[in-house]
Amino acid sequence: MCQGYKFGGVAAGLKKNGQKDLALIFSEVSASVAGVFTRNRVQAAPVLLDRQRIKTGMVQAVIVNSGNANCCTGVQGVQDALYMARMAASGLGIAEEQVLVASTGVIGEPLPIAKIEAAMPDLIRALRTDGATHFARAIMTTDTVPKIVTRQGQVDGIPFMITGIAKGAGMIRPDMATMLSFAVSDIAASSVALQPMLKAASDRSFNRITIDGDTSTNDTALLLANGLSGAVISSPAHCAIFQSVLDDVLMTLAKQLVKDGEGATKLVEIAVKGALTDKDAYQIADTVANSNLLKTALFGEDANWGRILAAAGRAGVPLQPDKVDICFDKVLMVKDGMGCGQAAEREATRVLKKPQFEITIDLKLGAGAASVFTCDFSIDYVKINADYRS
Amino acid sequence: MCQGYKFGGVAAGLKKNGQKDLALIFSEVSASVAGVFTRNRVQAAPVLLDRQRIKTGMVQAVIVNSGNANCCTGVQGVQDALYMARMAASGLGIAEEQVLVASTGVIGEPLPIAKIEAAMPDLIRALRTDGATHFARAIMTTDTVPKIVTRQGQVDGIPFMITGIAKGAGMIRPDMATMLSFAVSDIAASSVALQPMLKAASDRSFNRITIDGDTSTNDTALLLANGLSGAVISSPAHCAIFQSVLDDVLMTLAKQLVKDGEGATKLVEIAVKGALTDKDAYQIADTVANSNLLKTALFGEDANWGRILAAAGRAGVPLQPDKVDICFDKVLMVKDGMGCGQAAEREATRVLKKPQFEITIDLKLGAGAASVFTCDFSIDYVKINADYRS
Repeated sequence: MCQGYKFGGVAAGLKKNGQKDLALIFSEVSASVAGVFTRNRVQAAPVLLDRQRIKTGMVQAVIVNSGNANCCTGVQGVQDALYMARMAASGLGIAEEQVLVASTGVIGEPLPIAKIEAAMPDLIRALRTDGATHFARAIMTTDTVPKIVTRQGQVDGIPFMITGIAKGAGMIRPDMATMLSFAVSDIAASSVALQPMLKAASDRSFNRITIDGDTSTNDTALLLANGLSGAVISSPAHCAIFQSVLDDVLMTLAKQLVKDGEGATKLVEIAVKGALTDKDAYQIADTVANSNLLKTALFGEDANWGRILAAAGRAGVPLQPDKVDICFDKVLMVKDGMGCGQAAEREATRVLKKPQFEITIDLKLGAGAASVFTCDFSIDYVKINADYRS
Repeated sequence: MCQGYKFGGVAAGLKKNGQKDLALIFSEVSASVAGVFTRNRVQAAPVLLDRQRIKTGMVQAVIVNSGNANCCTGVQGVQDALYMARMAASGLGIAEEQVLVASTGVIGEPLPIAKIEAAMPDLIRALRTDGATHFARAIMTTDTVPKIVTRQGQVDGIPFMITGIAKGAGMIRPDMATMLSFAVSDIAASSVALQPMLKAASDRSFNRITIDGDTSTNDTALLLANGLSGAVISSPAHCAIFQSVLDDVLMTLAKQLVKDGEGATKLVEIAVKGALTDKDAYQIADTVANSNLLKTALFGEDANWGRILAAAGRAGVPLQPDKVDICFDKVLMVKDGMGCGQAAEREATRVLKKPQFEITIDLKLGAGAASVFTCDFSIDYVKINADYRS
């Protein structure tokens, strides 16, 4: 585990089912911090608060609740977010500006701040160096499994760790970050150095996944670095090393999010190549990955490649239909815009029965490439979201 | 009924369930024609053919099949579309260039042209002046009801009629036209006069609806005018009269399409006002209307207005969350970005139980306004589309 961090998670009564819903990360010393946030124009109170607070570059704790997004809650929402931070700071004996806040859950309901206040002493007592699982469980909403990834690297022979914890599982088509993600490291680095690395890693991971095409009002990804390992980022080469470990952590979390998407039964990579530019490739991958018709066909394990071509065709970028090849894993299903027949379809259907596979779309126009990870669209997705607030 | 048109529909064996799947419109005399087509870059063979043929400005028949889209079918697909037209022309005793073709159904499978050829004599024999219902049934795919609208107008005291027939019911987020729509009139007008009127009416109707956010490869809307009523469009005032009747026909069809959307149980108008521009208003209405989270909440009859604000916030246009009002029909649910409490929510929930209602989003920033019609997203949508080809 990362040195110098403690994690905790308790049940404060925000979730109707009585499960854990209040979580805390605490660093023994103040840590450099970077953050990326939703670009949705509707932003929850804790997002507004954190955007201000990370400007100082240093924080020591993050308090998080699930079960309520504290969004569209007006001035009261901002006061509640401030008060959450103040209570945590008081319990931890640190300055309140050293605490960040994140919330996730239903939008538009007042935060039950009294329940959070009542649970705060328990939460402080629950902090443990091996408490990451409790933290991960306490930030879950419709997630079915906690998501924690730890990776190790070294700079100048000194090892460092990064632990990442994230939650999904709906309103996921991140635009800067996923719903909530917290990465902590024991490396030493300035917040100025961390910020572009977090941004780059988020762009390559959380911003390349989709579950249902909706962007959350609460998207927050934070990165803390407290320096307690002794490893220090002090050169571009160190940055590259740290970046690659961070990329690995966030990409692994991102895939876990999609795999555990609401009602999802499959994790599918939509890989576009041969586009005129990377941007074109991304545009097509994103449009295909968000097509409800493709996603329902994936759920039905139906190699309905016509829906892939139809979605690609509406992405608004150059495309010559009679040049396009489509593969399901290694199975060539479409060659030059036409189906490869029933034998290929039988092979493709076998691929579709797997829990994880890749759909490659080759436009054969240029060298542009991009991938987006998506999931299928199931009856359970509709059930979960028709009944979400009840 | 419109004077001088005959309609027919028969079962040619293209649909697995044995229902009608081959349809024909025939005008006693050659008619002026206008057409708008999908802007998807992947376009079916009949779309490519019709785009060419309407350039002459005159046609006398339209042959349509359901059960197969004749899309992504290469050179053979184009030959099949040409041959369909030639067979119909031969049976009707007219020039083959006078026949347009439309297809709808599964993408990527060869058109069973032999079945169409075998059914052609039956189809010709089935033509009747009162055959519009048979035509409407024969072009249906996952539609549950046929869609026919007839309206009357008059210019210079001479009455004219417009009959419109359309089909949905999935892959519907038209971009120029809906899946298939055929409007015939007995007014006299040049194709040059008709084209902008059809384009305007389509933009106001078919291009303002969405069922699942996917744009079809086969979208086609045609308008024929054979002049047999004696009414003639010969002035801007006549154009305005005809336009208003045509708008009414296509808007009524558009709403019928959404109401009969795959798995849909509700027809909902998303009306945005107070935007800086009409374009901004449309962008928000379209984003909200396509939000899977809102659509599943509509299915669950849950007044989850947070999802409306969250979708509006990611539409990419100016928005001040703390200014936004949201109404369900007349019930004010959100005032200045915050919920109006449980009494309002109870009222709103009553509105949500209706089969048809309006959600108004007032941004209070300017005078821009736009509406998009959408439906809810149900378990049946997923079932229909998971199993579509089996």
